[in-house]
Parts: sequence; C-alpha cells; structure tokens
Amino acid sequence: MFSKEVYIRRRAELVRRLSAQMPEGKAGVVMFVGNAEAPQNYRGNDYKFRQESTFLYYWGIDEPGFAALLDLDSGAEVIYGDDVEIDDIIWMGPQPSVESKAAAVGVGKSAPAAEFDRAVAAARSLGRVVHFLPASRYYNVLRTASLTGCSPDSVRKVASVADGQVHASLELVNSVISMRLIKEECEIEEIDKACEIGWLMHTEARRNCKPGVCEQDIVGRMEGVTISKGWGVSFTTILSQHGETLHNHRHDGIITPGKLLLIDAGAESNTHYASDFTRTVPCGGKFTPKQRDIYDIVVACNDLAYELAKPGVTYRDVHLAVAARMLEGLKSLGLVRGEVRDMVAEGVAGMFMPHGLGHNMGIDVHDMEDLGEDLVGYDPDQKRSSQLGLGSLRMARRLRPGHVITDEPGIYFVPALIAKWKSEGHGKDFINYQKLEAEYLDFGGIRLEDDLLITADGCRRLGPHRLPIYADEVESVMSGE
Amino acid sequence: MFSKEVYIRRRAELVRRLSAQMPEGKAGVVMFVGNAEAPQNYRGNDYKFRQESTFLYYWGIDEPGFAALLDLDSGAEVIYGDDVEIDDIIWMGPQPSVESKAAAVGVGKSAPAAEFDRAVAAARSLGRVVHFLPASRYYNVLRTASLTGCSPDSVRKVASVADGQVHASLELVNSVISMRLIKEECEIEEIDKACEIGWLMHTEARRNCKPGVCEQDIVGRMEGVTISKGWGVSFTTILSQHGETLHNHRHDGIITPGKLLLIDAGAESNTHYASDFTRTVPCGGKFTPKQRDIYDIVVACNDLAYELAKPGVTYRDVHLAVAARMLEGLKSLGLVRGEVRDMVAEGVAGMFMPHGLGHNMGIDVHDMEDLGEDLVGYDPDQKRSSQLGLGSLRMARRLRPGHVITDEPGIYFVPALIAKWKSEGHGKDFINYQKLEAEYLDFGGIRLEDDLLITADGCRRLGPHRLPIYADEVESVMSGE
Repeated sequence: MFSKEVYIRRRAELVRRLSAQMPEGKAGVVMFVGNAEAPQNYRGNDYKFRQESTFLYYWGIDEPGFAALLDLDSGAEVIYGDDVEIDDIIWMGPQPSVESKAAAVGVGKSAPAAEFDRAVAAARSLGRVVHFLPASRYYNVLRTASLTGCSPDSVRKVASVADGQVHASLELVNSVISMRLIKEECEIEEIDKACEIGWLMHTEARRNCKPGVCEQDIVGRMEGVTISKGWGVSFTTILSQHGETLHNHRHDGIITPGKLLLIDAGAESNTHYASDFTRTVPCGGKFTPKQRDIYDIVVACNDLAYELAKPGVTYRDVHLAVAARMLEGLKSLGLVRGEVRDMVAEGVAGMFMPHGLGHNMGIDVHDMEDLGEDLVGYDPDQKRSSQLGLGSLRMARRLRPGHVITDEPGIYFVPALIAKWKSEGHGKDFINYQKLEAEYLDFGGIRLEDDLLITADGCRRLGPHRLPIYADEVESVMSGE
Repeated sequence: MFSKEVYIRRRAELVRRLSAQMPEGKAGVVMFVGNAEAPQNYRGNDYKFRQESTFLYYWGIDEPGFAALLDLDSGAEVIYGDDVEIDDIIWMGPQPSVESKAAAVGVGKSAPAAEFDRAVAAARSLGRVVHFLPASRYYNVLRTASLTGCSPDSVRKVASVADGQVHASLELVNSVISMRLIKEECEIEEIDKACEIGWLMHTEARRNCKPGVCEQDIVGRMEGVTISKGWGVSFTTILSQHGETLHNHRHDGIITPGKLLLIDAGAESNTHYASDFTRTVPCGGKFTPKQRDIYDIVVACNDLAYELAKPGVTYRDVHLAVAARMLEGLKSLGLVRGEVRDMVAEGVAGMFMPHGLGHNMGIDVHDMEDLGEDLVGYDPDQKRSSQLGLGSLRMARRLRPGHVITDEPGIYFVPALIAKWKSEGHGKDFINYQKLEAEYLDFGGIRLEDDLLITADGCRRLGPHRLPIYADEVESVMSGE
C-alpha cells in the first residue's frame, strides 16, 4: 500500500476527469465493488485473495468484502466494510477497524457493508447517474446486477451514461484508463520489484532446465519464488518445449536435448504490480545452428523495439518496424522472398508472429484488459487491423512517458497455420512453403520478452538486470549452471 | 484420471442409490455443471483451473466448460462440451475431441455445450424432476440459476425434491455423500500420493525454519513443492508464530528463536486428492520446558485418536476421549482442576481447543463441505453440540472402513477467549485463570495433525512416512538440518 496522499490525489483527479464529461452538478456517483473471496473447490476454501485492480488503485484496501462510493457532485467519499465481531477476534486475532483502514487511504467516512446497498439504491431512487465499472469476476457480476437491477449479462457492457440505460459507464472507464495508463513514480518502483522477482524466477527456471527434468518440476520452483518474494504469479506460467503452441499450459513434458524451452512467466509484487518476461533456452545448453539463425532474428527484433520505443511514436508503428526486421531475417534464410515493404503491407509476418508486439502492463499483466482491449490499447483515431498478428496487437497507442509496455517479438512455425495459409494461397508470392514444410514443421517457436518504461526521451528496460538474451551469453550462463 | 470402469461403476451406483429414493419410473434426471475458469483479476487471466469435485468424481473430465446429464429413468448419459475450432488449434495445438474425452470415462454420447441448456429445459417442460447439486462457486450459482429459472440465492439451498420446488436435491446430495465418504482403493492411492507431497512440503518448511528467515519465504518454498509435484496447495497455507490465531494467513513475520512455528498445510495431487498436515516446531530448534509440557500433551492426544479410531466407534466419542486426555495433561500442569469427567461434560476443553478433532478428507480437503457440513459429517441420529470445540467438530460419524479423516488436536492460549470466558464466569470451577493469565497469555498455540484411513480393524496413517512428531525426534532432525 502506498501513502494515503497517493490515493487522495488519485481520487481527486478521477473526480476532475469524470466530472468534466458530465453536466454541471449532475455528475452522479461512482460505485466501486471490491472483490470477494473466490472459492477454489468449495466456499471457505478459497484461492489466494486478489483485490479488484481499480479498487486497489483508488482505495488501496487489499481485503475481501469492501466497497466504496464517490459522490462526484458533493465530493463525499465512503468506504463500506464490516468490522470483525468479538467472536471473530478469537479466530482471527485483533483486527484494525474499518475506520482505521479507511483513514489509512485518506477516507474520513466508513460504514457497514449493508449501507452500501442502501446508498446505491438511494442514489438510483433520486434519479442520479450511478457510474460503475464493467463487472469482471462472476461475484462482481452477481453483485453489480443486484445493486443496479440489471441482468447479469448487461453489467459487463460498457456504454455512455448519456444512453440513459444502466450499464457500466464509458465516461468512468475512459477516465480510469487515462489515469492508470501513465504510471506514477511509486508504481514504477513496484513494477521494478515485480521484475526483480521475474528475473529470479526465470533464473531458477534456466538453472533447472536440464535433460530428464519434468517441466512441472521447473514450474513449481519458479512459482515458489513468486510466492516467497511476492504475491504469486501474474499469470499462468507458460513453460513448453512446444513454443509454437501459444496457449499451452500443460507441463508434463521431460526436458529433451535438441529442443527449445520457451518460458513466459511473471510475478506479482506484494502490492500487486506485474512483471512479464519470456526467454527461450536450448534444452541441451547449446543452440543448433538452425535454431540460432531464428533466435538471432528474434533478438534483433526485441532490440529494435527497444531502440524505437519513445514518446511520440505509436507502438503500432514499432510493431510494423519489427515485422519488417523479422521478414528481412527470414528472407536471408530463404523462408520468404520479395520486397520487405510489400510483405509488411500484405501481413506476411503474421504467419510467423500471429500475436502483437506487446501490451500495457501495470496492476494487471494485460493492464485493464477487462475495461475493454480497444479502449485501453488504441487511441481514438486508431482502428484495429484485421490482419493476423497486427490485429492481435493489444497496445497500439502513441507512446507517452509513463507508459509501461512489453516488448515480445516471436517467431513460430505452427504446422496448422502453415497448412491453412498454404491451402488458402495466402502470401503465396512471398512465402517459401516448400522450404517451410521440408525443414521447419518440427522447429517449434521462440519468443523473447522484456518490459519497457517509456521515459522522457526513449525507454528503459524495467527491473534491476536484463535476463541473459544474446545466444552466446545464454549458452555461456547455461554451461556454468 | 482413473480407468473408465471406475466412472462407469460410480455412475451406475449413483443411479441405483438415487432411484431407490424416488417413485418408480419418475426418478428424473441429474444435471452436473462443471466449473468454468475463475478470473484472478480479469477474464482470461485465470486462477489455476480446479474442476468441481463431484463432477470430477463421476465424470472425470478435468477441463473447464463441461456439463453432463444423467437420466435416472432411461439410464442415458451425455457429456456436453465444445470441440475446439480450427482457429483454436493454431493457438492450442491439436486437441482430443469431446467425443473421445467422453469415451475415456465410459460415456458413449456427447453433444455441444449449448445442447445442455436445451436438454435441461426439455426435462423441465415435461415436468420431470431435475436433480442438481447446491451451487458453489459464483459461476455455478449464475449458471444453475439460469438453467433452473431460480434466483441466485435459492440454488444454494438443499431440500427434498418432494417439496415440489426447484432447489438442490437432498436425495442427490445424500446419495453422493454416501458414496464419496467411503474411499475406493484407487482413491486411497491418490491420497497417499498427496500425503507424500505434504510430507515433502513440511520437510522443506522445517528445514527453512531458521532464525531471521521471513515466513513468506518459507511459504513460497513449501507451495513450490506442491506445484512441482502435484496440482498445488489443497488449502491456503497456515504458517504462523501465532498459532493461537486459528485463521491467520499473514506471513510477514520473521522467524524468532523462542517462538513456536505452527504449520498447517497440505497438497493436492495432480488428480485432485488432498492431504492436510500440521506440525508445530520450535523456531530455535529446541523447545523450552514450558513449551514441551504442552507439546507432549498434544502428541499424546494425537496418538490417542490414532489408537481409538476404528470401525464402530463414533469420531464424536474419539473427540471426547481426546478432550479428556487433554484435560488430564492440563490438570497435571495446574491449569485446570477437578474431575476430568465433569470438565468434559462442561466443555472445558473447548477453551483450549475451540475446534473439532478432525474432518473428512478426499477430493476436497474438507470433503464435500459445500454439500452441507452436517449432512456430510453427522449420522442421521447425531446432533451437533452447541459447546465450543465439540460444536465445531466437522466429522462426528460412526467410523467405517474407507473413511479418511484428519486427527488434529491442538492446545491454544487465546487471550481474547480467556478474557471472555473469565468475564462470563465460564468454567470458573475448573479453570485456573490466575495461572493462565500470569504465565500463558503469550504462549501461542500448538496443533499436530495426521491423516487417517479407517481400515477393517483400526486405522492407518496415510502417506509413506509420518512427519517427525515426538519432541526429541523433532529437535534431533532440526539440529541436523
């Protein structure tokens, strides 16, 4: 938790930005529903508690069962939660009061949880606008539906309050996004910490990448680090000798020399800021020449994005520059042919990298994704492409100081995708399908990911050290481990 | 996953037991809603998937988005789920079909997920009884409410289908409980595996219990073991130098010589069977004489439960015998006085052990708790006590071969509870409040827990080895670590 001044300042700024979009004196109230415990298999046996991210951002309280109300017109702020009963103290030990928890984040007024429902109902009965965020977890869907009288389906949909129906408020969503996108100094410190834990977990993984070891064993060691040093993983660890399968969460393989191990994993700090790194290492400690050829192209792409990312440039353009660099490399290997410029326009890189170059990162590893991917990642004048790869780009915006983004190019040889494109004649003037099919169907995939902070005049890699990335460097550290 | 014969046999037995409680030819259908992914902070960034336990027991499929229908009258069985689309294969790699997944658990018929809603609606429109389990996770609440047309609140309530309203079926719940309570050979093997992981995690914890180490660091190492070797933790790890606070999930303390570290933690095997062990170790490697006095009483209580637990005895009586043994020990230390028999009747032990001796354990660490604690843990002729301690006993039943239960006596000195009882005059004829207040308010708490399988003529401790428990043994292993 940060000092209370941080939360006071954030809420005041939210009031300012949101009120500016509303009629004078009729801005309404904002309701914030914190998360409840999420049962793992039965109620009372819960997953590790994770607070709703925007609640955490404005209200700081990292415990289940809280809610808050912000009155845009009067400026009143109230935190709702229940104090523990005397009987609970026997089980839980002495607990700080809700009042003191509210005071710690600069809120002077608190009330029992049940008052929240009454306060929302009162605002509605007066015909006031009630702004809320699109419900995310199923608990919030149920709770928000009950508070607003809407159907569970509808409380996930974002629309302008001017539309007159009750739904998550576009004005609120845009205000929140505009604030959370630009990270404050205290947030960057926390992201640096999450990156340090990420560095430790990847180091643990690389050291244990030895022939004969089970993938699951490595995953446990990595995730153990995240629990020892932070809250836990910021997303389900991807650790696979089939890097070409992008959504692969199986960990039952045995480390086999000659294969590549792709590790995409990150940690959440104790204050819930994320890191997200990918490295791809040779299972036997040495890359084959063929692996190294592809690997070096991905390294060059990662480095290029780092060089280009700076204020004023759009990340969409960085993605396209990386695509061009990738195609140049693939051309030098004879896997594609023709003018790079034409191939970029045609979207040929999408067959090798069917995902975007990166995404925003913050309290969520894909920051604010539940507020709407396009609202978060695209400027109002930007349209999402329909091309494979570029169309999956989650962060396309013109970069500004304080943006925190990932830089994660990859090259994959996906047999099903190669077959599909070939059968459709897609990119047939450029792609050497014969060579791909003869030599690369069992190659797998490589991705290399760092986290970047956009600074006043460029960017810096987050975390105290960069994970080894250059092929020589990787082979050298692995030979000593 | 077990062989398909296991699931075929279980479903046939369920049909038999449930139909026997229903009118001939009008037994109805049973709907099973498997779990969906549970978002951690936003949709798509999910907690590690955990299947609904009873779904796992009868249908075996350990993936999100499945449902099943069992027609008690016709015997028809259908598994509902969606095959991946060709585009998904690009991201997820080749996937087995729903049909083949159904076949692997002995089900001949499968259909797309959307057909499930239509099949339930069809049964309802024909006026057939639709049995379902009380909804547990919020997703299941929403889904079950939508399928049955009930309110979200009502789908958690269990009542007899004879009551004519739509709610979770008592007949189904009782049938499921009667089956899941008695563990099959293949289940016991899995519980033994979970216990082995539990042994490893506790060994890791004890080895790292060194002055100056942060509690969180130890927790990460323990939980890492559970992920390396199994699915993960079977419940949130309790690791605390304030063992007297029973519900303590903070891990920010530093290991301090002279304190006791209470570690209550267990693992879930890859097939989702649980273990649950508690040990309390001296932070400096040696018990003080005062700690040892209390510790030895708890060991004696644990051993006594093991000696007494056998078919035909109720676990309620074992709890009471343990309470008597505990009071004898406390009497010898001058903390209580009077006839042990009278103290047991008065419930004096509850101040020192405000929880029950144990609970059922299986696919859930508190097995089937969401089906109803009393339905699971009490025979029809047993009533739950209102006394502190005995009233919290989760498993009171007459023991039968195949029951798997925990044996977890503890002695705690809870300042708030001591103050409460003293002010109420509770147990004033027996409890030496003066000595308690003068000498034990900062003692903390001790719990020692093993997992027991009831056998034909007694019980056995589950897992390949018993964790060190005798004080000399604990000090000896700690001195060598």
